[in-house]
Amino acid sequence: MTTNMLAEITEQPAALRSTIDALLPATGEAERLARDTRHVLFIGRGTSDNAAVYGSYLLQAFAGRLATLASPSIATAYRARVDLSGVLAVALSQSGRTGEVVETLTWARDCGARAVAITNSVSSPLAEAAELALVTCAGEERAVPATKTYTAQLAAIAVLALSLGARLDISELRRVPDAVAEMLARPDDLEPLVNELATVPGVVVSGRGLAYSCALEIALKLKEACYLRAMGLSWADLLHGPIAVVDTQTPAILVAADSGPTLAGTIELAHRVRDAGARAYAIGGRPPLADACDRALAGPDLPEWLAPIGLVVPGQLLTEALARRLGINPDSPRRLSKITQTG
Amino acid sequence: MTTNMLAEITEQPAALRSTIDALLPATGEAERLARDTRHVLFIGRGTSDNAAVYGSYLLQAFAGRLATLASPSIATAYRARVDLSGVLAVALSQSGRTGEVVETLTWARDCGARAVAITNSVSSPLAEAAELALVTCAGEERAVPATKTYTAQLAAIAVLALSLGARLDISELRRVPDAVAEMLARPDDLEPLVNELATVPGVVVSGRGLAYSCALEIALKLKEACYLRAMGLSWADLLHGPIAVVDTQTPAILVAADSGPTLAGTIELAHRVRDAGARAYAIGGRPPLADACDRALAGPDLPEWLAPIGLVVPGQLLTEALARRLGINPDSPRRLSKITQTG
Repeated sequence: MTTNMLAEITEQPAALRSTIDALLPATGEAERLARDTRHVLFIGRGTSDNAAVYGSYLLQAFAGRLATLASPSIATAYRARVDLSGVLAVALSQSGRTGEVVETLTWARDCGARAVAITNSVSSPLAEAAELALVTCAGEERAVPATKTYTAQLAAIAVLALSLGARLDISELRRVPDAVAEMLARPDDLEPLVNELATVPGVVVSGRGLAYSCALEIALKLKEACYLRAMGLSWADLLHGPIAVVDTQTPAILVAADSGPTLAGTIELAHRVRDAGARAYAIGGRPPLADACDRALAGPDLPEWLAPIGLVVPGQLLTEALARRLGINPDSPRRLSKITQTG
Repeated sequence: MTTNMLAEITEQPAALRSTIDALLPATGEAERLARDTRHVLFIGRGTSDNAAVYGSYLLQAFAGRLATLASPSIATAYRARVDLSGVLAVALSQSGRTGEVVETLTWARDCGARAVAITNSVSSPLAEAAELALVTCAGEERAVPATKTYTAQLAAIAVLALSLGARLDISELRRVPDAVAEMLARPDDLEPLVNELATVPGVVVSGRGLAYSCALEIALKLKEACYLRAMGLSWADLLHGPIAVVDTQTPAILVAADSGPTLAGTIELAHRVRDAGARAYAIGGRPPLADACDRALAGPDLPEWLAPIGLVVPGQLLTEALARRLGINPDSPRRLSKITQTG
């Protein structure tokens, strides 16, 4: 039986193509909306917050803009007034119905921010609360763990970065659906890695820079669908203490693009993990990262700025396969529903 | 034998008193430096990053300023130019010698920001890189896990918040050393909780709003000194997926102040954790939070804005006792040194 999650993972090339085609014409409108703003403030929760981390690095590294993450409780719990003039607020929710995110975007507008929504639902409260909605075209997602709606969010963020003047090549973005399709057409054998992860009580998932978002997202997936005690960490933070947790019973999954300024440090980290007697697994960054690790899954053939869209795919496939191995239906993990409401 | 870590935990009232006395006279200078800025950008790693989370919530909730966290790799790995005019950069490093933090603060100044350092070392590279150094007076710290230098950082941040116009009562800040001393004079019996945590493979540590910083810090301590697979999460994010990981083998430590807008939700979370068959342990928030949990450690008698300075203390004591129970010397966890360098 094919799970909805697996079906939706394989639908990602089509979802990405539809999303990119639909959103590239909106760059002018986004550029106009952002004209009088300098700082970008992302608003999200869970998977959408991981997409926001990607956006934060992408805009800062390539568009010269300070781009950071909001704390929704400032709006929803503390009900504080914060001066947000000159801020472009970008709220993300796949369903567009996460009340906390809608409320925080509305608050941001009241505080003086311009407001963009990134959502998979055109007729959602979030789209209505925004001045501009970048609506992804991932189609309906039935599995609780978000896959195609997540990568479509990343594509929307890449379009936003281009709108905001990032010095990046638009033709590279157009290549993303094919690059993801190639990965899905020649998947690595997951069996050996599933066998090993099925027996450990926990795992560290680490990356840095643009790939950090992907480490967080894979750690989230492993927690929600495999109930694995997965700790997602920037490896810069990992070295400030948590590296002590890595051992024979706690391997590390290391995520990196095939190029970029954080690859060399990720390889060094692989050596430190193995020196600690722990297993190291690579996602992307090969061949040098793969050679430094015990096992490796190939990443996408994409430049670093777009690599997170493909790097998450082996992590999604791994989550889906590991969940089934553990006797869990990944489509409906315990105690979760598709739309989460927090106050 | 008393460990250095335990000795340093008990030195916190004196460290806090010295720090508050030394820094309160600096509020005028900080106010002048910040006059032409609107946004605060914190720079830190590891424990210092957790202190930054406290600062982010404190300034947004009470000083009306957008206050968020920097991604040091934007400076050190991507070497991006970002427009930081109107930004007050606040860099934290206990030693003042974490190269990455010093480099990121220098980068921020080059990008147009005003620069403040919070460090425990007056003659450090970080103090020299800043326009204003708020030097904490915690004395030498020998144990690798930071305790008194961390709470002294929180006190420095509270002084900064007052400098930036937070509508808060300075006399409450002056009460903090005594409130922490009272906690240390009548510690809860840690034995039952140590017995239970010694047998589990992992734990979730969760809080929200101002207490979130404390949940992150306790999770970091448990990873670095007890090698426990501890997942620190805002409970708003926890409900977006990771709640699935909580079970009979993965209890949750829930941190909350005795008052404030996030307490009610923390109590609800305790019920959800126990409904999942997991053990729930409270730090602070009592009596209502304690009543909703299986075990509880009392928090400080402090208002919510200062509670994180005291709430971390039971977590520090718990970490120290659990490490010893597990046969680990908490003063020198495996593979860690006191000053961490990352590129």
